[in-house]
Amino acid sequence: MRKLFLAEMEAVGDELVEMATLVNRAMKQARVALEAQDAGLAETVVAQDARIDYLQNALDERTIELLLLQNPVATDLRVLVAALRVSSSMERMGDLARHIAALVRLRHPASVIPEQSRSEVQELAELVVRVGEHLQRLMTGYNLAEGREIVKVNHDIDILHSQIMTKIAESAWDLTATQAQDLTLLVMRLERFGDHAVSISRKIAYLVTGEWEPPVIA
Amino acid sequence: MRKLFLAEMEAVGDELVEMATLVNRAMKQARVALEAQDAGLAETVVAQDARIDYLQNALDERTIELLLLQNPVATDLRVLVAALRVSSSMERMGDLARHIAALVRLRHPASVIPEQSRSEVQELAELVVRVGEHLQRLMTGYNLAEGREIVKVNHDIDILHSQIMTKIAESAWDLTATQAQDLTLLVMRLERFGDHAVSISRKIAYLVTGEWEPPVIA
Repeated sequence: MRKLFLAEMEAVGDELVEMATLVNRAMKQARVALEAQDAGLAETVVAQDARIDYLQNALDERTIELLLLQNPVATDLRVLVAALRVSSSMERMGDLARHIAALVRLRHPASVIPEQSRSEVQELAELVVRVGEHLQRLMTGYNLAEGREIVKVNHDIDILHSQIMTKIAESAWDLTATQAQDLTLLVMRLERFGDHAVSISRKIAYLVTGEWEPPVIA
Repeated sequence: MRKLFLAEMEAVGDELVEMATLVNRAMKQARVALEAQDAGLAETVVAQDARIDYLQNALDERTIELLLLQNPVATDLRVLVAALRVSSSMERMGDLARHIAALVRLRHPASVIPEQSRSEVQELAELVVRVGEHLQRLMTGYNLAEGREIVKVNHDIDILHSQIMTKIAESAWDLTATQAQDLTLLVMRLERFGDHAVSISRKIAYLVTGEWEPPVIA
């Protein structure tokens, strides 16, 4: 019985890996669609998000089955509850990529990125894509160094996000109202993607080390 | 043993009620702070959010304890897993109220609401506060009529949100870039508050009726 349980726990882990892989791909594709005004690719990102949502529900069901059929020990339970929390965050990250892609589709053939802001926004998107890569690797091997990288990259994301927000607010780029609105939402979504990844890193670190680093409230 | 378990399940329910009550209060206070430029009240909302975060963690721990000490039946498990999901949504709703309050504090003594947009924004905030009221009542008595009200009010929120976004984008109010940015984020947060409440309503309806109405993907 215990052996079966371990196999099921592994299946939960596999689903989290698949979610992380899809979330990483979604943000990578959303970035390409964003920078190349590729409405077709944007459509793909939007369509693929249903699979991420499906996986989250499947993980809920599998967790319930596991709890029903077995009598898991304390460590396993913590893993299951953490898995539920992590899958929530990843589902939300998928939504963020989808929202960015939907905006690209909506504005096509115009670009969501105003020319004046292009270098900053591209840098921000590149950092966010790096977070997605680290997240996928973190979920694959539970190497906490990946989580520490996420925290580090997210720090740079926060700084750049705040610089871009200031430039929008101070009319440094002379944007139209639509551009200011789109850009505000775009960079907010990129920034939130990083925050969710940090929150996942904390949960994984807690599971692996048993030590909790309390979240910092902004 | 079964009696003790039921008492513990009730405690989980009590924590969810407390969270819903705090979230409702947070959004009500954030709205007053927003409309009256009350930096002190905004500060209170920001400070009180820590209690909501604490309750979410406490609920995680209590759920783990329940699962460890008992061997819950299927229905109880679904309730526990749903409780984890619902508490996630409520924690996020608390964050949204906190972010609105933090913006009020940041811009004080200036108003986050541009005068030209005041009537629309006040109407939106009023709808969102109504969602918070229905949520608190839903979590107190599990009366699904409250959940249906949430879905209905949220529909009006979506329409009004989209009208306001269009007016910002079309420069109908002649806003400064800072105003456009603040207003975009403000109404997005109000709108998200409604979405989370709808998602909670769906989970509660599923628990009570056993029937799942699949979420609509935008």
